[in-house]
Amino acid sequence: MISVIGGVATAIGFVANGVKAGIKKSGNKDLALLYSEVPCVAAAAFTTNRFEASPVKISKLHIRNKTHQAVIVNSGNANCANGKDGDRKARLMAECIAKSLWLDKREVLVASTGIIGVPLPVKNICGKADVLANGLSKDGGRLFAETIMTTDTVKKERAVKIKLGRAVVTIGGACKGVGMIYPVMKAEKHATMLCFITTDAAISKGMLEDALCESIGGSFNMVSVDGDMSTNDSCFILANGMAGNKKITRKNSDYRKFTEGLKFVSAELAKMMARDGEGATKFVEIEVRGAKTKADASAVARKISASSLLKCAISGEDPNWGRVAAACGAAGVGFDPDKTDIYLGSMKALSNGAIAAGYSKEKARKFFTARDVKITVDLKSGKNKATAWTCDFSKEYVAINSEYST
Amino acid sequence: MISVIGGVATAIGFVANGVKAGIKKSGNKDLALLYSEVPCVAAAAFTTNRFEASPVKISKLHIRNKTHQAVIVNSGNANCANGKDGDRKARLMAECIAKSLWLDKREVLVASTGIIGVPLPVKNICGKADVLANGLSKDGGRLFAETIMTTDTVKKERAVKIKLGRAVVTIGGACKGVGMIYPVMKAEKHATMLCFITTDAAISKGMLEDALCESIGGSFNMVSVDGDMSTNDSCFILANGMAGNKKITRKNSDYRKFTEGLKFVSAELAKMMARDGEGATKFVEIEVRGAKTKADASAVARKISASSLLKCAISGEDPNWGRVAAACGAAGVGFDPDKTDIYLGSMKALSNGAIAAGYSKEKARKFFTARDVKITVDLKSGKNKATAWTCDFSKEYVAINSEYST
Repeated sequence: MISVIGGVATAIGFVANGVKAGIKKSGNKDLALLYSEVPCVAAAAFTTNRFEASPVKISKLHIRNKTHQAVIVNSGNANCANGKDGDRKARLMAECIAKSLWLDKREVLVASTGIIGVPLPVKNICGKADVLANGLSKDGGRLFAETIMTTDTVKKERAVKIKLGRAVVTIGGACKGVGMIYPVMKAEKHATMLCFITTDAAISKGMLEDALCESIGGSFNMVSVDGDMSTNDSCFILANGMAGNKKITRKNSDYRKFTEGLKFVSAELAKMMARDGEGATKFVEIEVRGAKTKADASAVARKISASSLLKCAISGEDPNWGRVAAACGAAGVGFDPDKTDIYLGSMKALSNGAIAAGYSKEKARKFFTARDVKITVDLKSGKNKATAWTCDFSKEYVAINSEYST
Repeated sequence: MISVIGGVATAIGFVANGVKAGIKKSGNKDLALLYSEVPCVAAAAFTTNRFEASPVKISKLHIRNKTHQAVIVNSGNANCANGKDGDRKARLMAECIAKSLWLDKREVLVASTGIIGVPLPVKNICGKADVLANGLSKDGGRLFAETIMTTDTVKKERAVKIKLGRAVVTIGGACKGVGMIYPVMKAEKHATMLCFITTDAAISKGMLEDALCESIGGSFNMVSVDGDMSTNDSCFILANGMAGNKKITRKNSDYRKFTEGLKFVSAELAKMMARDGEGATKFVEIEVRGAKTKADASAVARKISASSLLKCAISGEDPNWGRVAAACGAAGVGFDPDKTDIYLGSMKALSNGAIAAGYSKEKARKFFTARDVKITVDLKSGKNKATAWTCDFSKEYVAINSEYST
């Protein structure tokens, strides 16, 4: 596996585009399209929020189709809490672009991100469908990544190449999301984070679903910016088979190599979201090990990553690791506090539930001044581990989110 | 029931005190004592955080004793994550003050609040035990309320008088807590919020436990400042029987009147904590109605009250009610979004899952400019309701918590 510069249009046969449709108040690009020159199989995972947005509802229907060829995405409006009118507009988005691309509407997937509870200006979207379709290109991958941004400050793209037999398979993706980030996505075996991954691998729809399912748990579902689960979180993967590898139809070594690649791209994209979290000045990695079960490890890592208090401390470079212990104990998971260790970087702060010998607050403070902060918790109750990613909680986060809709 | 000015030393037979013991860096009062002139029955509820502080462990042991007469509390240090040494010091706190008061150590309850993971200067505490005991007085109730404060900006006290037969019974309490507030306390039928309630009612230990249990669910466990559950949350109630009412030993009308009074005091104290939340400029009440079960109503109200995004919006007076919908859907509770209504004050914003006719963003903004903000969600799926309290999330919260330990 080699990591390469690239995104949604890096795999063979994929093109993309992004244009201005007047949805964002800023006047920035807000309508993006991803297209495969040949039909793909697709898999998707969506938010488990009960208040699911209209595009989520429509994509959940469309994903049941056997083949897909396009994904249309708008930023600047979540098309959520808009009732039946929102559903109609999400459907219309798919229909307009299907027409421009000579596709069946069920071959089109839809995603939206932005403010909740504001009617979607769907006329703007349909009015731009032809321009959007006609401008599709290999270079458009970067435009796509730029267009889906909301409060993101950087584009988030990543790709890898893997070898399956003699064929070189590319997996590339782009994502957005730096606020309302605490996804719990469930693969539809049929988060607002949006992620779009493309690959030229030949793989069956069933295997693609399984691979997506496997990769989400350790990547997107382990990112937190603010602990607020979105109504629009969605992750799509499209595979068009153009790499010419022997089609993956069962869990053989090719499947494992492919899933390895997908996990890498997913984790890299997930980390980019944490790093660019709203108002973030630090990137924080939380590793929990020694848990009884994998689920326990994930629950503890996620709970720590969502602690507002810890994140404020990190923002102020204050080595207040007691907040790690408090969050750890609040995860609803069984472990023995009197056996627990906490490390700040490589320095032990807590040893068997008490302050570690040799702990130095000055050294701890120095550790907190780094751009990247790593905290490790060893529960010493088992052999399972998990890693979660987050960022610090700064005054800037509050500033961004106290004036979002106005 | 009449609400009166008062606190922990308002009920007959209770006295209190607060002194400086050099635990807080600020040099403010940090060691408090509550004492009943005659033995009491007591009940308590403690944090469900796995990383429970040493005073919680010791109080959990001591609460099993039949009678109690004193509670010793320090602020400025949580005595948590201090291992066996912390446990020893919490025990020592009880022993020192028991000696000064001529009590058995098991008649003393212990609580601590402050920073986690710093050794408790227990010598300072034991050194002040006699001074603390000798200074006990009726006026000391206010000193007590002041001494237990950490980042609190105001004392939190409340009392009521109720009539049971011919006897006038007083229930009074004091609490502290404005950060790391998201208590899930469980009564030991045998949050860092600390709450101390005293009453001169004659009531059995069992009935007192039941009354406390009933009152916590709708009061302290419905407050959120930051969604971080503390290691030290504790709520104590002591009843000394000096009011001379007919002893409450079963769930009769006197029990119900008493519980009514206790619920009132508890809810008032809980609201005071939300109002004084770290950095708060607004008091926010979230009412959820129409839920299938009481637990559903509480879960949704709590989830909304813990939304960082919503709280930032309220801080900026930005009527971004879509964040209410998103939090609502993230509570893990079953309801139909297409039937859900959201009100900002008396104005409907969402009606049956879509923007309400007549919704005006300008009016909504005006509503958000008030000091007290009320948000109501009607799930229209049943007949149960719950209310949660919180505050806005301001830059000041981040400022306070980015430099707490330094």
